[in-house]
Amino acid sequence: MKSITTKKDYIQSLKELHHAVYYNGKRVEDVTEHPALRPHINAAALTYELALCPEHEALMTAVSHLSGKKINRFTHIHQTVDDLIKKIQMLRLIAHETGSCFQRCVGFDALNAVYMTAYDIDQKYKTDYFEKFRKYLLHVQESNVMVVGGMTDPKGDRSLSPSKQADPDLFTRVVQRQSDGIVIRGAKAHMTGGINSHEILLMPTQAMKEDEKDYALSCAVPLNAPGVILIFGRQTNEERKCEEGFDAGNTQFGLVGGEALIVFEDVFVPWENVFLCGEHEMAGLLVERFATLHRQNYGGCKGGVSDIMVGASALAAEYQGTAGASHIKDKLAEMMHLAETLYSGSVACSAMGYKTPSGAYYPDPLLANTTKHNVTRHIYEIARLAHDISGGIVATMPFHGDLKNSEVGRYVKKYLAGAQGVPAESRMKILRLIENMSGGTALVESMHGAGSPQAQKVMYGRLGNLEQKKRWAKRLAQID
Amino acid sequence: MKSITTKKDYIQSLKELHHAVYYNGKRVEDVTEHPALRPHINAAALTYELALCPEHEALMTAVSHLSGKKINRFTHIHQTVDDLIKKIQMLRLIAHETGSCFQRCVGFDALNAVYMTAYDIDQKYKTDYFEKFRKYLLHVQESNVMVVGGMTDPKGDRSLSPSKQADPDLFTRVVQRQSDGIVIRGAKAHMTGGINSHEILLMPTQAMKEDEKDYALSCAVPLNAPGVILIFGRQTNEERKCEEGFDAGNTQFGLVGGEALIVFEDVFVPWENVFLCGEHEMAGLLVERFATLHRQNYGGCKGGVSDIMVGASALAAEYQGTAGASHIKDKLAEMMHLAETLYSGSVACSAMGYKTPSGAYYPDPLLANTTKHNVTRHIYEIARLAHDISGGIVATMPFHGDLKNSEVGRYVKKYLAGAQGVPAESRMKILRLIENMSGGTALVESMHGAGSPQAQKVMYGRLGNLEQKKRWAKRLAQID
Amino acid sequence: MKSITTKKDYIQSLKELHHAVYYNGKRVEDVTEHPALRPHINAAALTYELALCPEHEALMTAVSHLSGKKINRFTHIHQTVDDLIKKIQMLRLIAHETGSCFQRCVGFDALNAVYMTAYDIDQKYKTDYFEKFRKYLLHVQESNVMVVGGMTDPKGDRSLSPSKQADPDLFTRVVQRQSDGIVIRGAKAHMTGGINSHEILLMPTQAMKEDEKDYALSCAVPLNAPGVILIFGRQTNEERKCEEGFDAGNTQFGLVGGEALIVFEDVFVPWENVFLCGEHEMAGLLVERFATLHRQNYGGCKGGVSDIMVGASALAAEYQGTAGASHIKDKLAEMMHLAETLYSGSVACSAMGYKTPSGAYYPDPLLANTTKHNVTRHIYEIARLAHDISGGIVATMPFHGDLKNSEVGRYVKKYLAGAQGVPAESRMKILRLIENMSGGTALVESMHGAGSPQAQKVMYGRLGNLEQKKRWAKRLAQID
Amino acid sequence: MKSITTKKDYIQSLKELHHAVYYNGKRVEDVTEHPALRPHINAAALTYELALCPEHEALMTAVSHLSGKKINRFTHIHQTVDDLIKKIQMLRLIAHETGSCFQRCVGFDALNAVYMTAYDIDQKYKTDYFEKFRKYLLHVQESNVMVVGGMTDPKGDRSLSPSKQADPDLFTRVVQRQSDGIVIRGAKAHMTGGINSHEILLMPTQAMKEDEKDYALSCAVPLNAPGVILIFGRQTNEERKCEEGFDAGNTQFGLVGGEALIVFEDVFVPWENVFLCGEHEMAGLLVERFATLHRQNYGGCKGGVSDIMVGASALAAEYQGTAGASHIKDKLAEMMHLAETLYSGSVACSAMGYKTPSGAYYPDPLLANTTKHNVTRHIYEIARLAHDISGGIVATMPFHGDLKNSEVGRYVKKYLAGAQGVPAESRMKILRLIENMSGGTALVESMHGAGSPQAQKVMYGRLGNLEQKKRWAKRLAQID
Repeated sequence: MKSITTKKDYIQSLKELHHAVYYNGKRVEDVTEHPALRPHINAAALTYELALCPEHEALMTAVSHLSGKKINRFTHIHQTVDDLIKKIQMLRLIAHETGSCFQRCVGFDALNAVYMTAYDIDQKYKTDYFEKFRKYLLHVQESNVMVVGGMTDPKGDRSLSPSKQADPDLFTRVVQRQSDGIVIRGAKAHMTGGINSHEILLMPTQAMKEDEKDYALSCAVPLNAPGVILIFGRQTNEERKCEEGFDAGNTQFGLVGGEALIVFEDVFVPWENVFLCGEHEMAGLLVERFATLHRQNYGGCKGGVSDIMVGASALAAEYQGTAGASHIKDKLAEMMHLAETLYSGSVACSAMGYKTPSGAYYPDPLLANTTKHNVTRHIYEIARLAHDISGGIVATMPFHGDLKNSEVGRYVKKYLAGAQGVPAESRMKILRLIENMSGGTALVESMHGAGSPQAQKVMYGRLGNLEQKKRWAKRLAQID
Repeated sequence: MKSITTKKDYIQSLKELHHAVYYNGKRVEDVTEHPALRPHINAAALTYELALCPEHEALMTAVSHLSGKKINRFTHIHQTVDDLIKKIQMLRLIAHETGSCFQRCVGFDALNAVYMTAYDIDQKYKTDYFEKFRKYLLHVQESNVMVVGGMTDPKGDRSLSPSKQADPDLFTRVVQRQSDGIVIRGAKAHMTGGINSHEILLMPTQAMKEDEKDYALSCAVPLNAPGVILIFGRQTNEERKCEEGFDAGNTQFGLVGGEALIVFEDVFVPWENVFLCGEHEMAGLLVERFATLHRQNYGGCKGGVSDIMVGASALAAEYQGTAGASHIKDKLAEMMHLAETLYSGSVACSAMGYKTPSGAYYPDPLLANTTKHNVTRHIYEIARLAHDISGGIVATMPFHGDLKNSEVGRYVKKYLAGAQGVPAESRMKILRLIENMSGGTALVESMHGAGSPQAQKVMYGRLGNLEQKKRWAKRLAQID
Repeated sequence: MKSITTKKDYIQSLKELHHAVYYNGKRVEDVTEHPALRPHINAAALTYELALCPEHEALMTAVSHLSGKKINRFTHIHQTVDDLIKKIQMLRLIAHETGSCFQRCVGFDALNAVYMTAYDIDQKYKTDYFEKFRKYLLHVQESNVMVVGGMTDPKGDRSLSPSKQADPDLFTRVVQRQSDGIVIRGAKAHMTGGINSHEILLMPTQAMKEDEKDYALSCAVPLNAPGVILIFGRQTNEERKCEEGFDAGNTQFGLVGGEALIVFEDVFVPWENVFLCGEHEMAGLLVERFATLHRQNYGGCKGGVSDIMVGASALAAEYQGTAGASHIKDKLAEMMHLAETLYSGSVACSAMGYKTPSGAYYPDPLLANTTKHNVTRHIYEIARLAHDISGGIVATMPFHGDLKNSEVGRYVKKYLAGAQGVPAESRMKILRLIENMSGGTALVESMHGAGSPQAQKVMYGRLGNLEQKKRWAKRLAQID
Repeated sequence: MKSITTKKDYIQSLKELHHAVYYNGKRVEDVTEHPALRPHINAAALTYELALCPEHEALMTAVSHLSGKKINRFTHIHQTVDDLIKKIQMLRLIAHETGSCFQRCVGFDALNAVYMTAYDIDQKYKTDYFEKFRKYLLHVQESNVMVVGGMTDPKGDRSLSPSKQADPDLFTRVVQRQSDGIVIRGAKAHMTGGINSHEILLMPTQAMKEDEKDYALSCAVPLNAPGVILIFGRQTNEERKCEEGFDAGNTQFGLVGGEALIVFEDVFVPWENVFLCGEHEMAGLLVERFATLHRQNYGGCKGGVSDIMVGASALAAEYQGTAGASHIKDKLAEMMHLAETLYSGSVACSAMGYKTPSGAYYPDPLLANTTKHNVTRHIYEIARLAHDISGGIVATMPFHGDLKNSEVGRYVKKYLAGAQGVPAESRMKILRLIENMSGGTALVESMHGAGSPQAQKVMYGRLGNLEQKKRWAKRLAQID
């Protein structure tokens, strides 16, 4: 495969992919031409474009430990603590450009998680997954394809384990083992960037038991493989992406990642692309590692996205003549405080990262967990404060169509005027951006991306070393 | 005018109104036939329908102190503390029916605020506003028209007073005084239920100074009067209201009130409909009273709406098999705690209400203020918890169009299945309802309806009696 | 018994009680002379003193439904909703006088809870508890004794029921039934006002099962009965109460209620003072009622105490020259907001109160629960804000002994000076008051008085009517 | 001076210091023998003791960049990012040993702040402060004395600048310049570890203006210099430190730092110990640097202290039989989440640290600020949760004197028994530890140490780069 270097390459590669994408009950012929999908593609494309900017080279690229060549950082295996920190800085940088999700970290994290776990599986079971995975990785690094990491299964009744579900396909599984490969069935939900990725790297969705070996599965699948179907999830204000005008808020880059349900209807996967298959005891470790690597990110990208929210709110205040009010200044300071708290988490878990047996570096899991858990709260509070500063107009503004209308357009301009010298249109644009970034989908992604709050709460019990803390307390209280 | 009694009457009356409503740059011929406006009409219509149900008569109707006749409570002037409490109970009742805003409280509060203030103006200035207003009130009670209360001006640059704005029309004002009436110009923003009301009762937007007499204005205007133009505000997921299927979430009643920008382009108002005109010193009192009467409501309607959120979240958990998890139970309890906190505020300010010189009863302003201020926080937290319980699927669910599609519909059904026996469609419906109730517009209304948080914060300084509190503290600390 | 009317009567009656009080390992001969106990007595005495003030008569007294005589409201059985509301207003009033806990509401609530439940027990079991209790009540009303309500048992291992404890006495129980009465053993913990009450009205600590009949016990016991031992609980900064000077902060009234552990070492109780004995199925109802009646209070007294905190914080700011800062004003407003939220809860549950079969009125249990649950959070936040406003000096201030010292006293005065004209001593006094009201014991009382937070959380599941809420949500989502 | 190496050396050196310490109006002859001061000395002594443990050498010691010798890290100038991170790890380590404040970081931060600023002053003004300071530093490193950093002035009326105060001494100042040195007057408040340090390194309390040159002052003063007087601040439950028994909670190490008011009554300082004198434009920079270096710490020490709170709360639950309850587990997880959030802040600002012109490394000021601001909230919430888990008993427990008493001791033991096999005494000890760590003084220190919350809020405006954030938002909203 020819390496994807520019935005143009990337778009051309998607045109040629011919994967089965559905949008609102219709098959999409060319995702790059669909107005509702294009913003997500634009956002992901920046991961290619920025890598070509000399001023961003240090963050956006890395040197492959396999080939020694310069590669896009999104295909890199972390070799040092500095790599872990650069990852976070890169995410905040791109978030400043997009104000949205650029999606490619999911695959990045999947590559790293499978890499370090494949090594450990081989150590334990004398398998050859690691070698196969290094080959796969080399292909990704050289072709520079966009990989989506696929973890979350539909899960059906959450109170039942995979093998107890009414429909066994509610967790993705191996339905057939053949000499040349396996056949898989199931689905992965909420697949960020799914419709504009080239391949998916599947992982199990949770720890698996003895009788759930068929669900202990990791493998890579091209998204245009026969039997793969992608159904795009409807976003908040979905239709606005298809309109003229600025009501979509962030017309270039949309909002969050453009999630899809990806169905695997008896898809064949050759053995060389299989990296876990039946070693059920290792499923939990792989899940935990991916979760940690992905939670690590959230203070980087959401920190950056929050910076935009702060800037937009400050502008909204300025345009309305309230920027000088002390309570506005305090609310902006609070938003910055929350944003920097998120960022601190990502930096800290990176700085406390360490080397795994595979050689790859891994962020501190307890601190990564802490980072993501704060995101599930602070992004809501940042949105709340942005609404507070914006005023009710952020929810009752006329349509762009009204602004353009010959009869009422002048009233919209007249009565949405703010501080002198600020065109009503500027004010409307910044309010639409805030609306875009603070609505349903944007919030929920912060809640559930990289695992729900309870998934993190549970980790404190596991990683918090409560026994050691009890010993310290006993010693101070002089209890024998 | 023939009295409006049934939903049918109400819809017919709107058909005949021929007011100038604009939606996305187009004039709407018949609001009752427009799919995006109909849900708001349905919600408001319930204020008529429920008044006909014998089981709700005590809450939904009252006896007019003017005519002695049974009237719709939304046209009543509170005569007792019990009236104040019944108002809150009525609001929670209707919220349980609609899960949305039924809009008519705004005019209800305007009627009460103008009533008690017209009386006081007359006492001070020997004017005859009160008598004129009683006549107007009688007309409202007998015709049972829906009145929108009009307070919020566009306000332009918030750091400048009305008379200092670049455009003097950014606050609604009298542009001409004639022997038979006045001519007014300006606009009112965020007018809840504007497009499906019959009349508007204007009030000033803030206290006014000596040189702002033209802005000290209260009057009633039919919404089909020449020069009145209504521009509908675009809501979150606006388009879904125009679709088949259930993606709109609350297909019958929409969300919040259907706010409009109402423009007054040199509208004539006869003197008999003018209730404040130039007595600038009374503007502040009228504003404060309307604000109090309106803030009183928020624990009633939002308490009721939150009940629906609790129920929907409990169902979502049930459908997904998580209802038995202790953290889910705790989150549902927390949501109920917050909902009852809101309701307590509304009940308390009503129970502590008192009689004004006009004879009308008035809720305790400090406690009403407290109620609304809690709403600006707790509704966001309730939404956050609902998202937590719902899972990421609430933001990535396929379109209704996918469910209906012959190729992918079966995958949607298969992979969105939850607990056994629950159709995927039921699960999708309840998640769409949660999405509807927890998105941008629904949140912002809780933030800014009845005044922004800062508007309430300021009231503590004014109503909190800090000097008394300091005296108590000094006495205890034995400081002379 | 001669009726207790004045503070002098009250103190004299305590002198004559000769109950067995222990303080720091020593038997206290006369509680009224002990400097650490006197502040609590002063606070309780105000419940007598204020009842003699004509301006407080409406709140502080009531007319007995038994005798038709004017009685202290703390001995009254609520006869109307207005009685419920007056209770709250009375509590806030006394809190403004004491800035502390005046303790007598516990017995007040116990009297009401046992009254309404004795009636119901009789209805069910044809017992004669109600008649006996009316006689006891008449004695309380006529003598005007202070009664402590005794509910909380030590409970030992909370994961075990009473009958499974290693020591069966960890829940108070009947150890012997005789013809003339019963003999009881056990203890009640955290008994507010215990050391300065005359009698205790015992109630069970939780619902009881078939095999726990001996623990289903309610009876009245004079605190000077043989076998009753009271051990005073050590408070935050306990010693300061015994000092000269103002370091105790609230030198007259101390802080919270002066809790005691009351031990019952085989205490005899005649049958006429027994109001529940073995009817285990009624224990839960009695507990729930007492809990509701007691939770009802917390927005009254803590609302009043918070008013003092607001006033003291405002003075601290004034004395330090920060009163004009916008962030200080905002924090004071926030404190008032939280205080009024608490008060609203108490008013609301009272306004929504209703008549029980006994004729006594009962506050709405769901809203009473909500009130108390907010107290477990807001009092901490109010303390936090008070600390914020006060500055670090509230924790590092020199001793009163330093102020009085001839060598360093002048430095204390010189360097603790604040705004001009404010003596350093005034500033120190107000900071000591804040310290007193925001420290450990004061906070914990807000957390655990009237039941721990989890006790309230559990009630939402029981009283929140989740099934109804689910039905409403289903109807709106059009799920069959 | 002989180098202080062991705890014994340290105590001996304090004995020989003969500094003028006052405690409750009395001069203390030997601080090392005073029961209320000893715990603070014990805590500080650990900074010497742990440096002698081989397993802690990497954290507790460093190599001097001046002498090349191994020194105690508390006297080190940070030479790398790794030094910044080790500082945080060291603080958390010692906090695990003491559960309290070990005080010595204040001087550590002062040394670093003055070092880097003295360099910059010299660059600007051609002065020789840096060389003088290197000599002073070498003395500190070699003698290993404990230095307290002195910043906070009494400040009098906060609305007035130093030169406008009624008493010019309310900010510490130079009252006389002589050929051999200067004479200073004023005081420093809240001096952590003051009574058990050897020297104080003074810094100005805020940025200074042209007419406030006498207040632009930094110098080192031995605490036994003539004219220096130390007045110990009264802590929560101060007296318990002087008792037998365990009621003090942390009997070995007390709580927080043992703050003192240090008065300078015309104290002479030779020029060689003066590091800023009149260069008023540099005062602000020195303040900001000390603030940053000190705020950096708070997630280290408070993170460690919070670990103890988690452990103690877990034990309290275990001893009471509630450890298995889901809400208890959730609260413990929440406490750990908050503790790790604090720690993340400290790690992050260290990892993002950079080199100053002097060569010394400096933590990221925005992130250091964020860390401390979270401490002002989370420590209160951790205390609140600890109270929740502990139960009301933490505030009503009998005295240690009761436990020892022959008459009532057996009742205390009997009725404070918890889970089987746990002596009542163990339960009491752990509750006393929680009480110690969650009361007034412990909380306030978290609020105001290293600057009040508002001091941090202001920094967001200064360091948050709002203009850049506005530019990003404008670009995305496509506003020119």
